[in-house]
Order: sequence, then C-alpha cells, then structure tokens
Amino acid sequence: MDLKSVIRTISNWPKQGVMFRDITTLLKDEKAFNYVIDKFCDRYKNVPIDLVAGIESRGFIIGGAIAHRLHKGFIPIRKEGKLPAKTENEHYNLEYGRAAVEIHVDAIERGSKILLVDDLIATAGTLVAAVNLIEKLGGKVVECAVIIELPDLHGREKIEAKGDKLFSMVQFEGE
Amino acid sequence: MDLKSVIRTISNWPKQGVMFRDITTLLKDEKAFNYVIDKFCDRYKNVPIDLVAGIESRGFIIGGAIAHRLHKGFIPIRKEGKLPAKTENEHYNLEYGRAAVEIHVDAIERGSKILLVDDLIATAGTLVAAVNLIEKLGGKVVECAVIIELPDLHGREKIEAKGDKLFSMVQFEGE
Repeated sequence: MDLKSVIRTISNWPKQGVMFRDITTLLKDEKAFNYVIDKFCDRYKNVPIDLVAGIESRGFIIGGAIAHRLHKGFIPIRKEGKLPAKTENEHYNLEYGRAAVEIHVDAIERGSKILLVDDLIATAGTLVAAVNLIEKLGGKVVECAVIIELPDLHGREKIEAKGDKLFSMVQFEGE
Repeated sequence: MDLKSVIRTISNWPKQGVMFRDITTLLKDEKAFNYVIDKFCDRYKNVPIDLVAGIESRGFIIGGAIAHRLHKGFIPIRKEGKLPAKTENEHYNLEYGRAAVEIHVDAIERGSKILLVDDLIATAGTLVAAVNLIEKLGGKVVECAVIIELPDLHGREKIEAKGDKLFSMVQFEGE
C-alpha cells in the first residue's frame, strides 16, 4: 500500500514553514489503518515484548491497537501533569522553551522489554525523552516504532546514538 | 473479570474531594486490557458501524484498539487547536470556565454510523459535546461506549435525553 497517498500534508501548520504530515486521513481509512497495524504486528509478533508504551496523543491510537493485537498491556507516556499517581519525568527542549513527558513509576518493572510507539519522529525530542523515562525505571526499549520519519531532521541519529533502534514505515525527505 | 479490582482510585486528584478512577493499572494488565476490548467488540461486532471515534486522550487508547479489531477506520475528537485541517467545534462548560472539542469537518460523511468511545462518563460534558460534533457533520452515533460510569453525576441522563445510547462496563456509585 502507498501510505504517502493517505497521509495529508498541511502547509504552514502549526506555524509558517512547516509541512505538517496529518495521519487523520490514514486513520479514518479502514484499509490503511489496518495495514499499518498489521505491518507493525507482523514485525513484532515473534519478538519478546512485555508491554507496549505509547506517547500522548497520537501514539495512543496506534499503541493501543498494537498492544491489543499483540495481547500485551499498554503504558501511556503523557504530557506533564496528566498522570494521577507518582511519576518520573523527563524534560526536553522545544524550539522556544521546554516541555516534559511523564510515566507512572509503577508502570514498568525492572528488566521489562518495552515496545515504544509514536506516530512520527522529527527531531526525536519527545521520543528520546520517552526512551529515557523507560530506562530510568529499569525498562529496556526493544525498538521505537513510528509510522512517519522525517530524515532531514536527523531524529534517527539521536535514537541510534543512545544504542536504541528505530523502525519507521514511511519517510518524507526533502519534500 | 472483576474490573474494579484493576482500576486504581486516587483520592483528591486532580483536586480536593475527587476520587479519581485511574485506568492505567487496567491498561497495563494484559488480561484486563484484552478483556475490556474483547467485551466491547463482542457487543459491536454484528452492529452496522462505519467508523469508531475516540475522545482525546484516553479514548484514543481504547478507541484505536476497538477500531482495529472491528476493521474500521478511527476518527480522533481532540481538544481545541490540535487538529490541523478545517474543524467543527463545540464548547462545553467546566466547573470554572469553558473548554472545546473539535473534529475535522471531512472526518465523517453524512449518514455515517459512528461508535463513540471514551474511558469514562462523569457529568457527560465532553461526551455530549462529542455527540453534537458528530451530529453537526450529519453522522449518527450508534452508541457511546465507556469503561467507567459514575452514576451519581447523572451523565447517562444527558446522553439519553438527546435520544442517544450509553453502554458502560463498570459503575462506581456512592464510593
């Protein structure tokens, strides 16, 4: 399936100069959504995984589906202040200022193997912070799995520099 | 399965006097998460549904899994300012002030049958706003499906007063 044909590009959103890759057109297409989840699950069905973690918010849609399909539990990694119990948090830099992601400290047991899911990797700020959270709790990230990679922004290098792995399904480069 | 035993209650969160029902303990339990998705899908597998809509953020986890399992597309209903293309929006009252939810105007075709999913119904402010969004676009809500209902807050009455239906899996009443 040509996934690019079902991903909508919106120019100058959320700000001037950005080509936003909108997956809502993929998600609402039952064939495309199923294809994406099938492809992830084919890749991971024979890989030892204890839990699937998804990054708020679009990572929840894909991560929830993958977790269910692989018969695993799901761990939400959320923006600051959203999780009600005791959390570990990790800050990361934005273009202007900083943001943080959080995980419940009791979400993961030491040594657990975690599949980390999001919709897209750009500069990898959020994804690296999420990997750090999992590792702070003693978890091991089996792989970071995303639908879309923007290679021009070099997120992959940051993930691989940490010794972690990235799988992306479609790449938008120089477009 | 006794779902209440895997839902954690956190007192006085997000503010004094609230007993917050935390489903992260359910989601990370592979048996409980699978049980919940199985039960929803058993209920809807023979019901004519065109699309599954989920409400940000916890509704994305459950809605994504249900959509995939039923082989349907998924529509995100998001907080204000998060969706990149043209949206319809609907405001609702909070205890202090107002909030809004949004949907892409091209998410739903007129006459589409939509299963609307969230994790919890309390006063039904968000859920009624989401139903209104779907109806503004000409969609028909087949049912509102949630894991948790708080009957003391009378959300069900608001859904049913609109002529819509609610299914909840577990109720916390007077607790």
